[in-house]
This record gives sequence, C-alpha cells and structure tokens, in this order.
Amino acid sequence: MHHQSEEMKRCIETCLACYQECLSMAMTHCLEMGGEHTKPDHFRLMMACAEICRTSAHFMLIGTPHHKHTCRECAEICRECAADCERVGDMESCVDACRRCAESCEKMAA
Amino acid sequence: MHHQSEEMKRCIETCLACYQECLSMAMTHCLEMGGEHTKPDHFRLMMACAEICRTSAHFMLIGTPHHKHTCRECAEICRECAADCERVGDMESCVDACRRCAESCEKMAA
Amino acid sequence: MHHQSEEMKRCIETCLACYQECLSMAMTHCLEMGGEHTKPDHFRLMMACAEICRTSAHFMLIGTPHHKHTCRECAEICRECAADCERVGDMESCVDACRRCAESCEKMAA
Amino acid sequence: MHHQSEEMKRCIETCLACYQECLSMAMTHCLEMGGEHTKPDHFRLMMACAEICRTSAHFMLIGTPHHKHTCRECAEICRECAADCERVGDMESCVDACRRCAESCEKMAA
Repeated sequence: MHHQSEEMKRCIETCLACYQECLSMAMTHCLEMGGEHTKPDHFRLMMACAEICRTSAHFMLIGTPHHKHTCRECAEICRECAADCERVGDMESCVDACRRCAESCEKMAA
Repeated sequence: MHHQSEEMKRCIETCLACYQECLSMAMTHCLEMGGEHTKPDHFRLMMACAEICRTSAHFMLIGTPHHKHTCRECAEICRECAADCERVGDMESCVDACRRCAESCEKMAA
Repeated sequence: MHHQSEEMKRCIETCLACYQECLSMAMTHCLEMGGEHTKPDHFRLMMACAEICRTSAHFMLIGTPHHKHTCRECAEICRECAADCERVGDMESCVDACRRCAESCEKMAA
Repeated sequence: MHHQSEEMKRCIETCLACYQECLSMAMTHCLEMGGEHTKPDHFRLMMACAEICRTSAHFMLIGTPHHKHTCRECAEICRECAADCERVGDMESCVDACRRCAESCEKMAA
C-alpha cells in the first residue's frame, strides 16, 4: 500500500483478519450452533467487533489522522469480544484474532 | 425501527443524511470543481466523515451499547468537517448536515 | 443531494430505509425471538439484504454507472427477503420495506 | 475461516487485497498527483471498485449464495478498473490487484 508505516500495515492486516474471523464465525458457526452463540448480547458484540475492525482498516487506508480514535475503540471492543468468545467456548480462532487486533490497534491509538 | 428511543431514531436519521451529503458532495461536486475541493486533507476529511456517519448509524441499528463511542467520534469529525467545508465555501448543504449530525451524536454520546 | 434524478433520489431513500429495517429487525427482533428467526438461511438472507441495500445506495451516491447492476441484484435479493419474511411471519415492516426497495431498484436497473 | 472452500478463501483474500489497493491508491497517490488521477470518471471507478470488492468479500463471509452475483459484478468492475489504471499509468500495483481479483471472482461466479 501507500504511505503507510510498517506498524500501520500490520494493523490494517490484523483489523481485516479480525473482521473476517468475527463475521464468518458469527454468520456460520454461531447461527448453526444456536443457544449461547445466538444470545443477543454475544451475537451483537461479534457483529459490532466485525464492523469496527472494518471501519478502522478503512480509516487507515483513507489516510485520515482520525484512525487513532477508531483504533482505540476497536481495541476496546476486540478485548471485550475476545473475553466473551472465551466464556462461550469453542471459538479459539476468534479469540486469537481479536487479541492480535487489539494489540496492534492499541499501538496505533497511542 | 425496533427498540429505539425517539432520540436514537433521530440520530440514525441525521447520521445517514450526513453520510449521503458528504459522500455525494465529495464524489460529484468536489471532484468536478477540483482545486481546493480535491486537496488531500479536505477530501479525506469528507470521506472519513461519510464513513464514521455510516458506521455510527450501523452501531445504533445493531443495538450495541458501543454506539456511544462511535457517536462521540462522529460528532468530533462532523464538527471538523463542517468547519472545513465552510472555509472552502459553496458547500452549505454539507455544513448543515454535519452540524445537525454532530448535535444529535453529542446527545447520544453523553 | 447532487446531480441525481428524482427517481435516483427516491431509490437511494428506499435502499437506505430497507437497509435500516432489515439490519435492525435481524439484530433485535430476530435475535430475541430465536427459532425460525435465527435459522441460518433466513438470518443470512436478511443480512445479505441489508448489505446489498447499503452498497446500492453507496453506488448511486458515488455517481458510478455500475449502480444499474447493484440495483438489479438488490431488487432480486429484496424480493427473496420479502417472501421469506412473509413466510416466517410477524415482520410486516420488513416485508414492506423490501418490496418498496425492490420496485425502485427495478426502475433504476432498467 | 469457516465452511469455505479453498477457492472461496482465495477469492475473499483477493477481494480484500484489491479493496485495500484501490482505496489507499485513490486516497493517497491519486489525490496527491491530481490531474488525470482525480478526473471524476477515473476516481469514481476506483472507489466503486474498492466498494464492490469489500461487498463481495462480505457476501462470501456471510455465507450467502448470492455471492455469485456480487462476484460477477466485482469481476466486471475490476477488469474495467485495471484497464483504466493502465491507461492513466504509474499504478501497476493497482492493475495487478484488480486482475487477480477479477480472475478469482470469475471462478466464483461461474
């Protein structure tokens, strides 16, 4: 890409990886399992996580300095989503993607 | 819509109105005028404004409590975008949409 | 907005109304009801409908002639979503929004 | 990800790569160069390409069979965008990303 530091490239990558993981996990695994997986609070958190990851990547790609604020919010939602997916269980790949994204977003938000 | 207070309905409406105004203004008027209108900082701000408005509306429609944070960021970007569009001139409809959106987002973020 | 025919303005409006209706209905009513409402095929169709409506509105706002193709696809998904929401029942506002959107998208796609 | 064939995984990857390339190229390189790069038709095509790539990836991640139609449209816009970026010149990375995305989308649309 263009004009982006290595750290930002890495953050765009982890945001888009987490977006993919949360969205596909929610719309396939969670819908098919039901029960805890489609409880409104859990499911909404996963969809909010997918959306903020998508938006944070978009802000960095646009090149706007406001990415610092979307990255801060992204890190917060990812931490919450990782914890909730761990509680529900059987969602390790989502927990991992959320944690990696939170870490790189925290660096960008600093 | 569903489960939304009157204040939230109003905020979704102003966010989507501002998204439409900023995006279509940037992609038609600004691109056709050129000069100040396509200076990178101004154009990126308009596109960032369109995107955060779209995302804030999405968060309210999803029903996630994190909408408070996206609304706070939305209000900040809208204020900045309104000021910059006023400086460039000949963009009254965009200035107005940004200010209305900022006001309703500030209420939601409180 | 800018440079848009009355017919296009109307179509952007019906697309964004349908996006709001499908997204908020799925993420509040459907998640809370469960059963038929969170069956994977039905839920995915509602989310696909929300997304194509959002994208078709975006294409018209950008001013790209490719909106004809997204509008054609939008009309098709809206028709299918209206029929499925009618089958599941208790989702009249969503059925109506999908039908209105399909009608205006069909005109834009012609 | 979940439930996706190798071919679909590859297509999601090329769509998100092309989305990143078109969006960041338009919002940094093109805005900074001006001239041919911000001519409305060229710039709108790049933004339409970024958006349809984002949407096609989203459809595949959701798991909706309608991804075939968004992939077909995505392939068409990517081909057009590749040709236009080649004409303007100095945008090889964008031309390549568009061609790779068009190829994998054509397979998914078949």
